[in-house]
Amino acid sequence: MIHFPENLRRLKRGPQVMLPKDIGMVLGFTGVGRKSLVVDAGAGSGWLAIALGNVCKKVVAYERREDFAKLAGENVKRAGLQRYVKIAQKDVFEGIEETEVDLVTLDMADSEKVIPHAHKALKEGGMVVGYLPHAEQVQRFVKALNDEKFRDVFCIECIVREMLAREAGFRPDTTGLWHTGYLVFAKK
Amino acid sequence: MIHFPENLRRLKRGPQVMLPKDIGMVLGFTGVGRKSLVVDAGAGSGWLAIALGNVCKKVVAYERREDFAKLAGENVKRAGLQRYVKIAQKDVFEGIEETEVDLVTLDMADSEKVIPHAHKALKEGGMVVGYLPHAEQVQRFVKALNDEKFRDVFCIECIVREMLAREAGFRPDTTGLWHTGYLVFAKK
Amino acid sequence: MIHFPENLRRLKRGPQVMLPKDIGMVLGFTGVGRKSLVVDAGAGSGWLAIALGNVCKKVVAYERREDFAKLAGENVKRAGLQRYVKIAQKDVFEGIEETEVDLVTLDMADSEKVIPHAHKALKEGGMVVGYLPHAEQVQRFVKALNDEKFRDVFCIECIVREMLAREAGFRPDTTGLWHTGYLVFAKK
Amino acid sequence: MIHFPENLRRLKRGPQVMLPKDIGMVLGFTGVGRKSLVVDAGAGSGWLAIALGNVCKKVVAYERREDFAKLAGENVKRAGLQRYVKIAQKDVFEGIEETEVDLVTLDMADSEKVIPHAHKALKEGGMVVGYLPHAEQVQRFVKALNDEKFRDVFCIECIVREMLAREAGFRPDTTGLWHTGYLVFAKK
Repeated sequence: MIHFPENLRRLKRGPQVMLPKDIGMVLGFTGVGRKSLVVDAGAGSGWLAIALGNVCKKVVAYERREDFAKLAGENVKRAGLQRYVKIAQKDVFEGIEETEVDLVTLDMADSEKVIPHAHKALKEGGMVVGYLPHAEQVQRFVKALNDEKFRDVFCIECIVREMLAREAGFRPDTTGLWHTGYLVFAKK
Repeated sequence: MIHFPENLRRLKRGPQVMLPKDIGMVLGFTGVGRKSLVVDAGAGSGWLAIALGNVCKKVVAYERREDFAKLAGENVKRAGLQRYVKIAQKDVFEGIEETEVDLVTLDMADSEKVIPHAHKALKEGGMVVGYLPHAEQVQRFVKALNDEKFRDVFCIECIVREMLAREAGFRPDTTGLWHTGYLVFAKK
Repeated sequence: MIHFPENLRRLKRGPQVMLPKDIGMVLGFTGVGRKSLVVDAGAGSGWLAIALGNVCKKVVAYERREDFAKLAGENVKRAGLQRYVKIAQKDVFEGIEETEVDLVTLDMADSEKVIPHAHKALKEGGMVVGYLPHAEQVQRFVKALNDEKFRDVFCIECIVREMLAREAGFRPDTTGLWHTGYLVFAKK
Repeated sequence: MIHFPENLRRLKRGPQVMLPKDIGMVLGFTGVGRKSLVVDAGAGSGWLAIALGNVCKKVVAYERREDFAKLAGENVKRAGLQRYVKIAQKDVFEGIEETEVDLVTLDMADSEKVIPHAHKALKEGGMVVGYLPHAEQVQRFVKALNDEKFRDVFCIECIVREMLAREAGFRPDTTGLWHTGYLVFAKK
C-alpha cells in the first residue's frame, strides 16, 4: 500500500506520478527550503512540482504536452499553490529561461540532454536531480553530468518497505513496491 | 558514504543525528510545508528540527538535557533559522504546551509515553511520526497510537542504497548502511 | 514471479511451502551434502525435506498432522526420493529419536520448544535452523538457543529481487516478494 | 559478518570466492543433486565447485590460469572431494568437452561468449547460471541466452541481511553487504 500525505491525496493523477518516497529523497538530499528557486521538468501531473512548491519560494515546472500542462495546472490550483508554482507549457530541450536556480529536477525521457541547460540555469552550488527508471539512463545521465563538470555526483535507489506491527508479531509486509526509479544527484 | 545537503553539512554533531534519508521520509510522507507548526522531541543535535525549520512556519524542539539543548541552539544559529526554530529545554514527558500542531516528531527512548501529549497537541488531521531503532519499540509505539485512536497508522523502513554508475559498469555499492530506525506515521 | 527448480515444480502444495530462496539459504549456510543426516520438522507439504533429500544421505521429516504427512509422503514419491526421505507421522515436541544428526530444520509454530530435543539429537558441530515469520519468534528462538549453549547463532533475512534485463533497459521489477521468514542458524 | 559453513571454512582463498548466499541461490534455484553432472567455469579458488561437489554426482571445473587451478585443486583435497570434483586446467572459451550436462555455472569475465558452448554441453532441460557483477554484463549475457534460444531466463539479486536479535531489541544490523553479483538462470 502506498501512503500519500494529505496535500497529494487531493490531486488528480495523469501520467506516472512521483511517489512520496522519491519526493522525500529530493527534499532530504537537496535541502531546498523557503529561499529556493526550483525548475522542474517535465511536470507530468505536477506532483513533484507541488511537493516542491509546498516548501520552496518558487517552482517553475516545464511541460511540453498541452494536456499534461493543463492537468498539472489544475492540480496546482487544487493544492492552493498558484502563488508558488508556475506550470510553463514549454519544451525544456530548447533551454531554461530561469537563472540563479537552486535546484533543477528532471523526470523525463532523454533527460541527459537537458543537463547543459540545467548547468547554465543553476547558480554555483545549485543541484540537479534526475529520476531515471533504467540503469542505462543513469549511465548516460552521469556521463553528461561529468561532461559538464558537475561535482559530488551520486546515484541512489530508495526502497521503502512496509512493516507490519501487529499483535500476531512484527514482520515486513509479504509483498511490496521494489522499484520506481533511480535518483541521481549532482552539484554545480 | 552518506551524503548531506549543504544546510546540514555546516552543523555540529553531538548525539546521533537523523540522516537525510529519514528526514526525507518525514518530509515526503507528512507533506508539511510553509504553513506548518511542528513540535520535535527530543531535539538532540537539532538536525531534524533544522531540516523541518527550513521548510515549516515554526518548529518547537524539546530537549531535556542542557548540553544537547545548547548544541542544538548553536546549530540553529549556524543554519540561520533562529526565526523559525526554537529549542526549548524542557521535558516532553511532562506535556506539550503548543496546540493546533500539524506534526509531532518523536526521536527518543520511551517515546510511546509521549503519544497522549502528542494527541492533545495535534490539530485534527495532524500527524505524529516516531523514529524507532528496534521492533519492540515499534510494537509499543503502535499500541499506544491505537490506544489513543490515531488513524492511518503505518510503519516503514527506508533503505537507501548507493548505486555505482561507472564506465566499468553499473552496480550497487558493495557495502552500505542497512538500518537506522523504523519510522511510524499516524494521523489524529 | 517465483521460480521453482524442476524437482519442486512437480510437487503438490498443501500448507505453506518453503521457497527456493530460503531452501537455498539452508543449503548454502549449513553446507549439508551426501554424508548428512537431517531431521526436518514439521514436514508440511514436504518441500524442504525433498530439497534436502535431493542432496543429503537421509532426511527424517516429522509431521504431526495425518493429512500433511500423507501429502508430504506423496510428494516424496513424486520426487522419486523414497530411499532418502522418510516422512514420520510423529509429534516432534515429544522428542527426536535420531542421534548424531548433522542438521535439524524447524519450520513450525513454537519451534523454540523443540530446541532442547534438537540439541540432544545433534552431533557436535551439527546445526539447527529455524524458519520464523515474526521478530518475536526469532527472539524466543534465539533465547532458547542461548539457553542450550548453542554457538555461532545468527539470524538472516534473504531478499531475492527479480531484475528485468530488457532491451528497454535494466532495472529491478516494479513489485515483488518482500518477506517470507527470518532464518536463524546455530551450531551445537 | 559473513558466515561460512564448515566445509568452506577450511578452504584457502585466492581470487574472489562465491559467498554462501550466492552458492545457496545456485543450489536452491537449479535443484541439482546426487544425479547431477555440473561444469563450472572459471574455477577460481574452487569454492563453488566444491559446494556443488558436496551435493552433485560430478563437477568438472575449468580454470585457465595455472596458479588458480593449483589452488582450486588443493582446496578440493582439503574438502576431501577428489572423487567428485575435477579441476581441469583448460580454457572454456575453446569449448566444453562434457555432454549431457545438468548445469553449467559461469563466473568469469566475458562469460556470455561461453553460452554457445554451454548450450552444446547441456542436456535438454539442463540449466546455465551466470554470476555477473554489473548490469551491462547481465544485458550481454541475457542477449546471448536469447540468441541461443534458452528458455525461462530470469535474473535475480540475492540480498542477505543480518538481523540482530538481542535483549535490547530486534533490528537489522547497521551496515552490511549490499552487492556481490547478479545471478542469471536459464534452461535449455
